[in-house]
Amino acid sequence: MDEKLILAKWVVPSAYEPPIKEGGVFIKKGVILDIGTKEQLINKYPNVEREVFENGILMPGLVNAHTHIPMSILRGLAEDLSLMTWLTQYIFPVEAKLKKEWVYWGSLLSLIEMIKSGITLFCDMYLFEEEVIKATEESGIKGLLGEGLFDFPSPSYGPLVKGLELTESLLRNFQNHPLIKIAVCPHTLYTCSPDTIKSCLKISERYGAKLHIHLSENQEEIKLIRERYGKNPIELLAEIGGVNENLIAVHGVKITPKEIELMSKAKSSFIHCPESNLKLGSGVAPIPEIIKAGINLALGTDGPASNNDLDMFSEMRTACLIQKGIKEDPTVITAKEVFYAATEGGSKALGFLDTGKLSLGYKADLAVIDLNNHSLQPDYNPLALIVYTAKAGCVSHLMVNGKWIMKNYQVLTVDEEKIREKIEKIKKEVLKIIS
Amino acid sequence: MDEKLILAKWVVPSAYEPPIKEGGVFIKKGVILDIGTKEQLINKYPNVEREVFENGILMPGLVNAHTHIPMSILRGLAEDLSLMTWLTQYIFPVEAKLKKEWVYWGSLLSLIEMIKSGITLFCDMYLFEEEVIKATEESGIKGLLGEGLFDFPSPSYGPLVKGLELTESLLRNFQNHPLIKIAVCPHTLYTCSPDTIKSCLKISERYGAKLHIHLSENQEEIKLIRERYGKNPIELLAEIGGVNENLIAVHGVKITPKEIELMSKAKSSFIHCPESNLKLGSGVAPIPEIIKAGINLALGTDGPASNNDLDMFSEMRTACLIQKGIKEDPTVITAKEVFYAATEGGSKALGFLDTGKLSLGYKADLAVIDLNNHSLQPDYNPLALIVYTAKAGCVSHLMVNGKWIMKNYQVLTVDEEKIREKIEKIKKEVLKIIS
Repeated sequence: MDEKLILAKWVVPSAYEPPIKEGGVFIKKGVILDIGTKEQLINKYPNVEREVFENGILMPGLVNAHTHIPMSILRGLAEDLSLMTWLTQYIFPVEAKLKKEWVYWGSLLSLIEMIKSGITLFCDMYLFEEEVIKATEESGIKGLLGEGLFDFPSPSYGPLVKGLELTESLLRNFQNHPLIKIAVCPHTLYTCSPDTIKSCLKISERYGAKLHIHLSENQEEIKLIRERYGKNPIELLAEIGGVNENLIAVHGVKITPKEIELMSKAKSSFIHCPESNLKLGSGVAPIPEIIKAGINLALGTDGPASNNDLDMFSEMRTACLIQKGIKEDPTVITAKEVFYAATEGGSKALGFLDTGKLSLGYKADLAVIDLNNHSLQPDYNPLALIVYTAKAGCVSHLMVNGKWIMKNYQVLTVDEEKIREKIEKIKKEVLKIIS
Repeated sequence: MDEKLILAKWVVPSAYEPPIKEGGVFIKKGVILDIGTKEQLINKYPNVEREVFENGILMPGLVNAHTHIPMSILRGLAEDLSLMTWLTQYIFPVEAKLKKEWVYWGSLLSLIEMIKSGITLFCDMYLFEEEVIKATEESGIKGLLGEGLFDFPSPSYGPLVKGLELTESLLRNFQNHPLIKIAVCPHTLYTCSPDTIKSCLKISERYGAKLHIHLSENQEEIKLIRERYGKNPIELLAEIGGVNENLIAVHGVKITPKEIELMSKAKSSFIHCPESNLKLGSGVAPIPEIIKAGINLALGTDGPASNNDLDMFSEMRTACLIQKGIKEDPTVITAKEVFYAATEGGSKALGFLDTGKLSLGYKADLAVIDLNNHSLQPDYNPLALIVYTAKAGCVSHLMVNGKWIMKNYQVLTVDEEKIREKIEKIKKEVLKIIS
């Protein structure tokens, strides 16, 4: 049967539409063709197969707009250190000896975690990204994926020219794939010269591909770029021609008002990773100002080694709480604004324009939150429960393109037990490197 | 059998002791009498009953050092509003018509949530606190509980004098109870006159009871108290004689260096509620300064209407992340410091001196974290997993005084289904009041 009714106690179609009590969606061939109350849908489609969540919230799948999923293999390896100590003594030594199969198994571990967090689409940049692609296809969720590019030789592709070739070949191979799109991923402006950025921009333009880059993450980066080029990172990128509709600018903790204006005019997307920014001591991005400027805002967890999870519910909550707290004003950001960023804002940023809300003609990419969980009672306001109370473990079902990826908390696409065993082995190999 | 070995992949005895790989504890009559590696314990106690968590972390139960658990019935009722609008249009109208049975069922709902979050001890102040006491006894976890006292008439006890009498009668009735202690709970310095505080202090002194009070929560409170008394709240309390070893000072977002010194000299305890402070727009308490001054620090969720959960794992993580972020320094606070606050710091603050760590002669109050959860892999560092990754849903087992309260995620002491039904009914009654 390629027709289906999915009915639930609540439907939250999108951030700015009212929730529907006792509602549902009608799906045909993986696309949402109707939405309404249970009664309306059952009357219109009396003979269609029904799946009913008597005590669930049906919502769009979440979009994790920035991460490095293979880094789950380094989660908790070292904590409470300065960024330089953490990178130079732990992360870089392991990444220098990174193995393809670590990337593959680390990706699968993270994909399970993301599925259980209600994520149907994510954006990733790392080394050996073809392994991330392979794992993502197996998992059944959607990704905008790209190989991290920088001027020094990569343990993955070798010299930069090979990285650019790899990116182009991936762009050719994944046109019109149902789950995967490819991005061009220069790492940062301090690891990529303006010439490298220009090469990336040419590819981005040629294929209409997104340009995914870390920008203005912390004060050290600002200092370095200002010393080297006499201007701030986003200004510099704008001069090279990189601030445009394809830009996915990640972090922006230290973005200036002038740079906000540049991004707003250019219709670029801004990816906010509040928990990683806090944990690494980078600071707090000026999100109310970003929203006010009309910039498309999305939300990401960043990699699981600096977060230390891939829980987009927690990320939404932190995004709200931190602004209210530091501005000492509980009205300065709302649950709706952050839920928008974690759904429609994310899918728009990543160029997946037919997902991110439960709406006619959109793909059936959705999650079910289980209200049997005692922390989710009472249910005055389903959106408040989603943003301020729910967490990864509260999602019982996940669907991508009309196909169930998780049912009753069981991931259907990958072998959870096998992954655990592989990760235990990889842990021992990693410990040998840093000991 | 009143003897038992509990063995696990990891034992985290306390914040500052190294974790034991493949370790366990020996328990007799609800008290920990030995701790060591699996091998040592099995050799010493070959014939004692064993419970083995092959893939678990055994840790002390968490201490939620400040909350108002009946407020779960108001969770999500109204969001993203100024504090005054939230209180006067939603919280106060409902509390004015508060029913005893709402307090009882709301408490049970929260107790389930706390048990699932690994909490074995909590501190509560609300109205109709006898209902909280009744629910807590049924749940099987420990509480320092007290009726909230203020100058205006209470929907619970009526005039203040009756509230003071109630507090004294509870103090008499709950001496030497295995689970419950009673605190004297003047609400704040803006709802209680200095005379009321003095009456509370007399009772506290007479019974050796803790004095549990909200202090210096936000800028409005500082302004009000300064206008009324010409000094800051903790200074004022010190003048009345209330800053001493029995003081449990909650929030302290706006504490001054002078007040930090007062609390440090007096050996008072400071309860940090970071998520509520952020969500209500109060600000961020100066926690590194509190720790540096040697003040006993504990951690609390505050009530579930302003958090919106009772997850102490999330609270530990936020406590770390927020300080690292706003100080732009990842070394400014550590997982160990925050784990200490959430365990030993809490039990010390609440006057339960035989719990809060896994140590000889301490009560067997402990939690098991389930490492089968994919977000908790790999396990390089169990403490980092506890503070930076675990969340409420990761606790599979909970023990208080040697007795299992939860096994395999099932709470054994209360009827979860019945509570859900009651909460659904209360929700409808609450909606009638505010509509």
